[in-house]
Order: sequence, then structure tokens, then C-alpha cells
Amino acid sequence: MAEKKQVGIIMGSDSDLSVMSQAMKVLDEFGISYDVDIISAHREPQELFDWGKQAEERDYKVVIAGAGKAAALPGMCAALVPIPVIGIPMKTSDLGGEDSLFSIVQMPSGIPVATVAINGAKNAGILAAKIIAVGDPALMDKVKKYGTSLKEEVKGKNARLHEIGWEKYLEEK
Amino acid sequence: MAEKKQVGIIMGSDSDLSVMSQAMKVLDEFGISYDVDIISAHREPQELFDWGKQAEERDYKVVIAGAGKAAALPGMCAALVPIPVIGIPMKTSDLGGEDSLFSIVQMPSGIPVATVAINGAKNAGILAAKIIAVGDPALMDKVKKYGTSLKEEVKGKNARLHEIGWEKYLEEK
Amino acid sequence: MAEKKQVGIIMGSDSDLSVMSQAMKVLDEFGISYDVDIISAHREPQELFDWGKQAEERDYKVVIAGAGKAAALPGMCAALVPIPVIGIPMKTSDLGGEDSLFSIVQMPSGIPVATVAINGAKNAGILAAKIIAVGDPALMDKVKKYGTSLKEEVKGKNARLHEIGWEKYLEEK
Amino acid sequence: MAEKKQVGIIMGSDSDLSVMSQAMKVLDEFGISYDVDIISAHREPQELFDWGKQAEERDYKVVIAGAGKAAALPGMCAALVPIPVIGIPMKTSDLGGEDSLFSIVQMPSGIPVATVAINGAKNAGILAAKIIAVGDPALMDKVKKYGTSLKEEVKGKNARLHEIGWEKYLEEK
Amino acid sequence: MAEKKQVGIIMGSDSDLSVMSQAMKVLDEFGISYDVDIISAHREPQELFDWGKQAEERDYKVVIAGAGKAAALPGMCAALVPIPVIGIPMKTSDLGGEDSLFSIVQMPSGIPVATVAINGAKNAGILAAKIIAVGDPALMDKVKKYGTSLKEEVKGKNARLHEIGWEKYLEEK
Amino acid sequence: MAEKKQVGIIMGSDSDLSVMSQAMKVLDEFGISYDVDIISAHREPQELFDWGKQAEERDYKVVIAGAGKAAALPGMCAALVPIPVIGIPMKTSDLGGEDSLFSIVQMPSGIPVATVAINGAKNAGILAAKIIAVGDPALMDKVKKYGTSLKEEVKGKNARLHEIGWEKYLEEK
Amino acid sequence: MAEKKQVGIIMGSDSDLSVMSQAMKVLDEFGISYDVDIISAHREPQELFDWGKQAEERDYKVVIAGAGKAAALPGMCAALVPIPVIGIPMKTSDLGGEDSLFSIVQMPSGIPVATVAINGAKNAGILAAKIIAVGDPALMDKVKKYGTSLKEEVKGKNARLHEIGWEKYLEEK
Amino acid sequence: MAEKKQVGIIMGSDSDLSVMSQAMKVLDEFGISYDVDIISAHREPQELFDWGKQAEERDYKVVIAGAGKAAALPGMCAALVPIPVIGIPMKTSDLGGEDSLFSIVQMPSGIPVATVAINGAKNAGILAAKIIAVGDPALMDKVKKYGTSLKEEVKGKNARLHEIGWEKYLEEK
Repeated sequence: MAEKKQVGIIMGSDSDLSVMSQAMKVLDEFGISYDVDIISAHREPQELFDWGKQAEERDYKVVIAGAGKAAALPGMCAALVPIPVIGIPMKTSDLGGEDSLFSIVQMPSGIPVATVAINGAKNAGILAAKIIAVGDPALMDKVKKYGTSLKEEVKGKNARLHEIGWEKYLEEK
Repeated sequence: MAEKKQVGIIMGSDSDLSVMSQAMKVLDEFGISYDVDIISAHREPQELFDWGKQAEERDYKVVIAGAGKAAALPGMCAALVPIPVIGIPMKTSDLGGEDSLFSIVQMPSGIPVATVAINGAKNAGILAAKIIAVGDPALMDKVKKYGTSLKEEVKGKNARLHEIGWEKYLEEK
Repeated sequence: MAEKKQVGIIMGSDSDLSVMSQAMKVLDEFGISYDVDIISAHREPQELFDWGKQAEERDYKVVIAGAGKAAALPGMCAALVPIPVIGIPMKTSDLGGEDSLFSIVQMPSGIPVATVAINGAKNAGILAAKIIAVGDPALMDKVKKYGTSLKEEVKGKNARLHEIGWEKYLEEK
Repeated sequence: MAEKKQVGIIMGSDSDLSVMSQAMKVLDEFGISYDVDIISAHREPQELFDWGKQAEERDYKVVIAGAGKAAALPGMCAALVPIPVIGIPMKTSDLGGEDSLFSIVQMPSGIPVATVAINGAKNAGILAAKIIAVGDPALMDKVKKYGTSLKEEVKGKNARLHEIGWEKYLEEK
Repeated sequence: MAEKKQVGIIMGSDSDLSVMSQAMKVLDEFGISYDVDIISAHREPQELFDWGKQAEERDYKVVIAGAGKAAALPGMCAALVPIPVIGIPMKTSDLGGEDSLFSIVQMPSGIPVATVAINGAKNAGILAAKIIAVGDPALMDKVKKYGTSLKEEVKGKNARLHEIGWEKYLEEK
Repeated sequence: MAEKKQVGIIMGSDSDLSVMSQAMKVLDEFGISYDVDIISAHREPQELFDWGKQAEERDYKVVIAGAGKAAALPGMCAALVPIPVIGIPMKTSDLGGEDSLFSIVQMPSGIPVATVAINGAKNAGILAAKIIAVGDPALMDKVKKYGTSLKEEVKGKNARLHEIGWEKYLEEK
Repeated sequence: MAEKKQVGIIMGSDSDLSVMSQAMKVLDEFGISYDVDIISAHREPQELFDWGKQAEERDYKVVIAGAGKAAALPGMCAALVPIPVIGIPMKTSDLGGEDSLFSIVQMPSGIPVATVAINGAKNAGILAAKIIAVGDPALMDKVKKYGTSLKEEVKGKNARLHEIGWEKYLEEK
Repeated sequence: MAEKKQVGIIMGSDSDLSVMSQAMKVLDEFGISYDVDIISAHREPQELFDWGKQAEERDYKVVIAGAGKAAALPGMCAALVPIPVIGIPMKTSDLGGEDSLFSIVQMPSGIPVATVAINGAKNAGILAAKIIAVGDPALMDKVKKYGTSLKEEVKGKNARLHEIGWEKYLEEK
């Protein structure tokens, strides 16, 4: 922990790790450093508080927090640190993630959480990159290139579709 | 604060006070003492933590927590104190309180919140009385009498309906 | 039935037993005694009434009631006994358990049901322990220790994550 | 109560009376006799049981039950009497009546409730008439005439619309 | 078609047949005769109209109609015949059957559909039996016996649970 | 009725007329002729059938059908005529129009209804114009001009906002 | 692209192709020519704009656009071209497609999207045929024949059901 | 437009201005400069494209976009500019804003929108300040002071409540 990381990633349970890893992979692509912690707001409030103080010392620029069901973690992170907090609502087996989404996005006046789609960890990573890039022109170039690569990917698929026709394209998939 | 109170009542905003006052009135009826605090989980995490420590010292038996929208307060109270926490989801102007309800009832394994109906502050007070009455036979007698009075009230209405007929009953209302 | 049990557990169908068994296991952990009954409010109203009278005689401290769909059982238990009733909404195959949740949590004024999450039988058991512990300091100690063990479990996972990194942690799972 | 009534109407609260009175008015139109009772399933389970026994003695042909929120009344009526029970979900101020609807319509296998629309008391009355008319040809004639009058009413409106044009029709309303 | 049947069963698609067969089986148990037809309100409006006229001639006592998604069939049956129509909302793969439920239960004033639970074909059959039994004491006896058998079934399960304990019961399932 | 109209407008109740009149006004703007009828699918199935046959004779190009709750009218129109049917789900007081929307948009395979937004009668009129314009270049010019006027209207508002500032703009409204 | 196509089909991702292919198959049945493109509104706004200009030049009569989640594609197509745009909401794994449906059907005044059911690509193709047929009597004949074939298919199933009985029919399936 | 502004605020309709003005007021408090534009994604796609190019030239750091119903504006802004886009779902009269929320938050992989609560314009302004503050220590100090003032406000209310008691506090409101 000698070296300072740019993003603090936090999740409520290790069952969220598979979804959350998409955020880590995107940050890796952008060359953005990060810490990862599993801290449950409801089981470990003191640990969350301590994390909040460390976050200040560690000087994160952005926090990414993922949680499911009555998902208090992203909002409590936003209560503890002044920097932008991105919230990821986890899909749930009974209500599909509508519970997680409402618990994260419907924050009261004063304490925003920048909420992305249900299970949208990849977008959380990209949003973190965009936020950091506001003050980092080199990173903003990478963000723009990333946007271009997204376009190229879809354009490539469309070109392939036009080349072989939709029937073959569907078979190949 | 010299005298110890039995119930800690906490709400996220003074806009919840009108609904929450129904809990206070019911506790008054049962002769149960209580403290009332307005503490926002998201705006005052440190104050909430301090409240959690005081709750331990004050030796509350039950906590009643009401909050709306992304309602983290009841769950965070349940994270901070070992005693039963009753959660009241506040009605909201856009989603009707479905957001508050999901944010309070869908707690993860390990940390339950005893959730009542949307805007169900009166029932929260009654539930607190029932919980305390488990170890207090005199209070349990009051709880039973309260149940009887509920019955008598409806029976009285039904008797009146039978006496004057539904048409007149409807006019009188 | 010579020996008095502390908790009455009741479910509407034996198809709920697998979920409900999580409540029994938690009560076992806490050393809390309980009866288990399968009684359908809609198919056996008389049996439910008889259960209500026995519950009084058996002197339960808390009732745990689980049911699905148009889940009347928890509310009817709360109508029949003065002690706290904890309701568990069962997940349903069509509406995900939203039907069960609304049928249990939205109780009218006067008759609260302490509702936990959809399929939240484990939390129902813990809540029962917390309620009984209000008048039982030895049990309250166990409740606190249980809370500590929850923390230790997550802390252990986080330590492991820091030790081996998230990539390996994900592989190991 | 000397004379036997054909329909037993029951509601959970006198706040439902205004909506429920639409059922009474329709039954009056059909010349069908009825009793009206306000009995809360949750506040007066014993009274509901007694009502169930009386319903048997009184030899009702159909029961109409209206209730709101966690609406157990219609389902419990269906548990207590073998005759058809029609359920009316009351509109609620927070969830619009979706809670009442799910609590009434999603009955478990074995115990159906014939559910009508939210606040659909008029339709409940008509459905009761149709059910009784299955064994009562004279009433079936009235049911058919009622259907014809519904048609005539809309046809009259359409004729008026064609006569004066939609602009004037809209002004007149 | 020489012999008159008591119930007309109609469904919108043969993909509903597996669910709908639960209604047929229950009617068989009660010794109630029925016709079965697959007629799509949206694909075959003329056939549905013809069915409506035949229904009158065939002198059905009750109609059971099942349909999914924008389920117009039960409501259109209720528009075409004066007798009671029972509607069964089919579960759908995307919205879980909430679409079917709303399309069937939310009928406008004047034309009720007696709606049962999503996929509740068994209850539709039982409800049909109850409606016919209003004018048929022998069938009412069967309905009461059926109710008794439902009770005995659950009581048997509860007895077995008490005999072998919930752990073994769970294993045996 | 000597002159042939291009669009048949139909609604389930005269309570829909105020919303529906927005469609008429838009068609007037485009110079598209239309008939207006109030016909209830559920109360007047025969009248709806007759309307279907007349629609064929009258040679409508498009049908616009608005209805609320269990809104069968648009789907039944689509069953009766081969031409495009545009459905307008009416807002409802309890479920906000979600019931109407699901009843109209979730049509089974084979019989589409071109559904617009809840209370979207104006858009229904515009869509009708666009459909007729497919084979009518002069009308397509009007459609394009209409699109341009929409742009100009918003551009005018934005210009005004830039001129006077948002504070004054807000006061003026 | 020498020959002009009648329909422009566009989808937001190649993961939608399997569902969308049902639209292509129906258009093939009707002998209607079409282009297929994969263009993401959010990843390729410029490409979408270019497509909009080409659509004008290519002189499509109708556009069919399918997209999922925050599905902006159909609405943006409707913003870019004056011709009718048919929108298909894709089923989603978390919210079942309710998100896609609301994002497509709830268009603001001025810019309608003719929305079909969730995953309703087949109906989108049929609706496109009906729209083109408004100005093409030969195609209208095909549309009518298609409607007849739908009826024959269900009638054939019903005849088979009557022939072999529902028990055997169910086995055969 | 000589001076460069830090934030671009954009809304789909001037009916959103009253809600959106809360964002402007907060930015004023923080001393953050901004432009305000009313541009409809669906009515003015070309204007939105031009805005996207200007946004690049104007060198905004953050975009705040508010829209209702099928709210494409925030997502299309995110498609057009590489910087962070904050989306505000407007409350709607029929679906309460659930439609706007789903249309904004459920963005596909690659193009995040930082979504705040329904009508959460104030939080959008605060989030913009936090994002800009990542690279602006002086602004971060203001953000922290703002957080402190939020705490003080609630603490003041709680102190007043303790001073005069909840009964008087409620009267005074």
C-alpha cells in the first residue's frame, strides 16, 4: 500500500466478485490503479468507517461500490468520502435487481451516488476512467480511443453481416 | 438523559416526523418511554455511529427507524446495535414507497430489520410494545387489552352499521 | 410437548420447508427451542385457530411464519396471538415473491408483522433470537458473538483477497 | 335476520364502505337480498370465524369480500365457507392497490377467490348476480337485460356523438 | 355434442393446454362434464363469436378461459355470454404473467371476469364446481368433501413431520 | 358517410374522449379525414363486429383505438381488420396505465398493435399520418414540415432561454 | 444497394439478431425486400446519423428497430426519418424487458414509435407488411391470406383436439 | 460564449426547467460556471449532434442531462461526448418516473450514464461538483464544507427537536 491507487473498489460480499471483476479488467485496460476490498456495510460498519478514513488518506479519486438487495454500501461510501462514488446494483434472484437499483439510485438530497445499470460493473469502470480523465488529458485520449474501438467493433460486425448475410451470421454465432 | 428510555426512535429527516409521530403516540398509550432523534445516515454517518454507541449505553430494548427512498438508516442501525430494529419505509412521491420498502426489507443474511408497512409507524410502535412485552407480563396484559380495544372498535362500527343501515352510515361519515 | 418451547415456527406448505429450515438451523445455533408446524391458513382455518390457542398455552415468546403468494398465514398468526410474529415472504416462480412480500408486509394498522426479506428465513431466526434476547442477557451475549463471527467471516475473506489477489480468489471460488 | 339473504357482503374496514356500496346498489337493482358486515380478519379473527359459521346457517349463495393492503379477508372467507367468494382489492394510497390485488388473486391451490378489478365493487355485484343466476332462470333474464342496457347506454352515447360531433360532445361533458 | 356439458373450457393457444389440463382433471374429480376448445380471440374473432352463440345453445353453466400476454380471451367471453366466466392468466416468460393478470382482472364496469391466480387452472376448476354447486346440493357435498380432503392432506404431512422431525422430512422429499 | 374517411377512430368509453381528441386535432392539422366511434369491446361485442365489417367497406387506411384497464379494444380491432391498428393505452387511476399498456402492447404472434405511449393520442394521430404518407407523397411533405415545426418550436424556446436567462424564463412560465 | 429495398431493419447489437430474424423471415414470406444493419445508437451516433441520411436516399417505406435495456435506437430512428418506425423491446435478463419496453413506447409528443410486444419481432414484420399494404392492394391480399392461414392453423389444432381428446393431444406434444 | 464554462446542462423540454433549476442553483453555490440548453433528442437530433460538437470545443468537464419518459437524451449525450454525463430521470405523471429511470440507468456496456434519483437535479449538481473537484483541490474544499453544512443543518434540527420536544416541533412546521 506504499504506492497510491487511483480508485477504491469495494463490494458487499465475495459473491459479487465475478460481476465486479469486469470493473477491474476495464481499469486495467486504462492503466488505472485500484484497491479492492470486500466490506459489508451491514456486517462490518466499523470496518466501513475505517475504510472511509483510509480512503481519505489513500487519496482515491473515485470509489466504485457494488452491492445487492437492500444495498446500503454505495450510499454509505458516499456519506463517508467527499469524492465521487459510483454505485453498481447487483442482479438479485427474486426481484431481478430492482431492489438493488432502488436502494442505490434513490439517494436523498445532498449525497449523490452515480448509479450505473444492474450488473453494470464494466460501465462503472469506464465511468471512473472518464471522471479521472477530466483532469488527466492523457487518460482522456485513452477514453476517446476506447470509444473509437467500441465503434470499430460494431462496425466490423455490421460489415461481416453485410458480407455473409444474416442467415450465415446467425449460424456462425 | 438521566433516566433510561426503553425505545430509541430515529428518523432520517424531519419531513418524516408527522408519520413517525404515530409511533410515539402508541408508545405513550402503552406507557413506554422513548428518545427521538433525527439523524441522517447519509449526511451524518459519524453522528449515526455515535448514536449507535449511545444506544448501547442507554440500554434501549428496541429501535424504531424510519426513512424514505434509498432508506439506509434502518439497516445501518441494525448493523450498529444488537437489539431488534424495526424499520418503517416512508411513502415517496414518485415510486409510492416501493423504493423505501425494498431498501429496508431486503436485508442480507445476518442483519435482519423487522419491516412494517409503508408509512406503518403506528404498527412499528405496537410491534415495539409486543417485543418488550415478551419479558414484561404487565405490558403483555396491556398489549392484549389493546388488541381487545381494536376488536371492540370494529365491532362497534359493525353494530352501528346494522342499526342504521349502510346508506345512513355512509351519509354520516 | 411436555417441555415448553420458545419459538413457534409455522409454514403454509411443506414446499416451504427447505427455505424455512434455515430458521431452524439458526435457532439451533443459538440454543433456542422451537416447535415446527405445517398449517395452511387457507386450507385449515380451524387448525390454525387451534394452533393459536395452543400457542397461548405453550407460551411461545415469538412466532416465525413463512408463506408464499397470497400469503395470509403470518398476518393471521398475528391476529391470533399477542406476541411478536415474524413473517417470511416465499419467493414465487411467477412474480418473484413480490406477491408474498406485499401480502405480508402491508398489514393494516393495529396488527404488525415483523417482515424480513424474500426467502429470508435465516434472518427470521436471528430476529427471533434478538427479540428473546431483550429479556435474556445470556442470549444477548450470544447474539453479539454471532454478530462478531459475521464480521470475522467477511474480514477473513477480505484478508484472503488481499493475500492472493482478486484474480486467484475468483478462480478458487 | 329472520329472512334468509342470498349474498353475504363483508369488508375489512368502514373506510371501504364507499367503494363497497357500489356492490350493494347493483344487487338492489337485481333484487338480490344481502347482509353487510364490517369484520376485520386481522383484528377480529374470532368474529370472522363466527361469521363463517353463521354464513353456513344463513345459507348464503355467494360471498363478496373487499379489503385493502395485505388483504387477507377474501382468502380467509374462502377458507371458511364452501360457496363462491368474490374478492375486491381496494385501491391503496401508496402502491395503487397492487398490494391488495396480489394478496387476493394469488391464492394457493385448493382455495380460489374470484377476483375482480381494483375497486371493482360494481363488477363484484354483477358477478354475484351471474353466479346466482346459474340456478335461477328469472334472474338470468335480468342479467341479460342488464347486459342489453349496458349496450344501449354506450350506443346512445355514440349516437349522440355522431349527432353533435365530438367537439360539442366534449364541451357538454 | 348430443349430451349437454356443464362447463365450456376455452384457451387461446395449445401451448396453454398443459396448464389448463389441471382444470379438466379437477372437473373430472367432481364429475362435472365439459367441452374443451382452442380458440384465439385475436386470430379467430369470428370463431370466438360462433363459440359464443354455441355456448348459449349448449347451455353451459360456467366458462373457464385461459390466455397469456395481452389476454383478451376471458374478457371477450364475458362479453359474449351472460354466465360467469373464470379467467386464468398464463405465466409469461418476460413479465412473469403480470401482463396476463392485468389484461384479465382489470375489466371495466359491467363485465366482470372471475380471475384466479397466475397459472391457477386447478383453482379455476374448483371455482367452477363451487359456482355450479350453488344450485346443486349433491355437488356442494362433494365440494365440502374436497375441502376436507385438502385439510387431511396437510394434516397428514404435519403429522409425519412431527413423527420423524423436520430434518428427516426434508431428506425424504 | 357518403364520403370515405381515411382513419377510423374508436374508443371504449366517452371518458376517453378528452385524451382521444388530441388525435383528432392532429389529423385535422394534416387534413386527414376520420370517423369517430365510441364502442366498448366488452359491452358491445356485436357492435364491434359490425364496426369491423363497416371498416372494411368504408375502406379505412388506418385504425386508431384507445382503451383503458383490461384494454381489449385495440387488439380486437386488429383481429377484425387487416389494416394497421394503432393502440393508445389510457392512464388509469390505480395502476397509472401499466395495466392498459400491457393489455395493448403484449399482443400474441400474428396480430400486432402499433402501441404508443400511455395517453399518447397525439402521437397516435401523427403515426397514422406517417403510415398514410407512405403511399402519399404530398402528405409525406406535410409530415416533414410538421417535424420541422417541432424543431423550430424547441429552438425558439432555447433561443428565448439564452436571451433572457433561465431565471427569468422560469418566472415567465 | 443498386435495387431499392422497402424496409430498413436495424438492431443495436448482434446479440439481438436471433430474435430479429423472425422479422426477416416474415418479410421474406410476404416478398418484401429489406436491408439489415447492426448499429448501436450509443456506441455509433455518427453511424446512426449517416444511416438516417441513407434511409432517406434508399427511400425505405418503414423502419424496424430492435434494442434492449435503455433502448434509444427506435426513438432515435424516429427522430431521424419521417417514415413509420416500428420498435421491438428486447427481453432483458434482469428486468424481463420492462426496461426496454418503457424506453421505446413512452415516446414524447411529436415522435411516435409503433411499439410491439417484448421480443415481438415477428409481429414487427407483420406490422411493416400491413403498413406497406395500405398503398399496395396486392400486398394487402397477401396480408389477408396470412390472417386466414393463422386462423386455419388454430382451427386445425382445435379439430385435432376434438378428434383425439385433450389427454392424447397433450401426450403428442 | 467567449468565456469557457465548466458544465453543460441540457434538458429535453422546458417543462423540465423547474426541476433542473435545482442543479443550476447548486452549481452557483459552488461557483461553477455552466451553459443551459433545451434540446430534444427526439425532435432535434441534428441540434443535439451540433451541441455534441460544440461541447467538445467548449471543453466542458461534465454534462448534466435531464429528460422524462423514454428519456434518450442523457444516453445520447454520453454517446456524443467522452466526458462524464450525469442523467436525471424526470418524474412522470403515469409511471412515476420508473420509465425515465429505466431509460437512463440501464445503459448498454461501453457508454455509462451516471444516474441520480428521480427528479434528483440537486444531487446532479453536487455530483458534477465532486467530479470537477477530483482535479481541483480548492473546489474539493468547498465540497467538504458543503457536506459539513448538510450535517450542521440536520444537527440543528435535532437539537431543536430535543429542546422543544417532538410535539411542539411538529406544530411549528
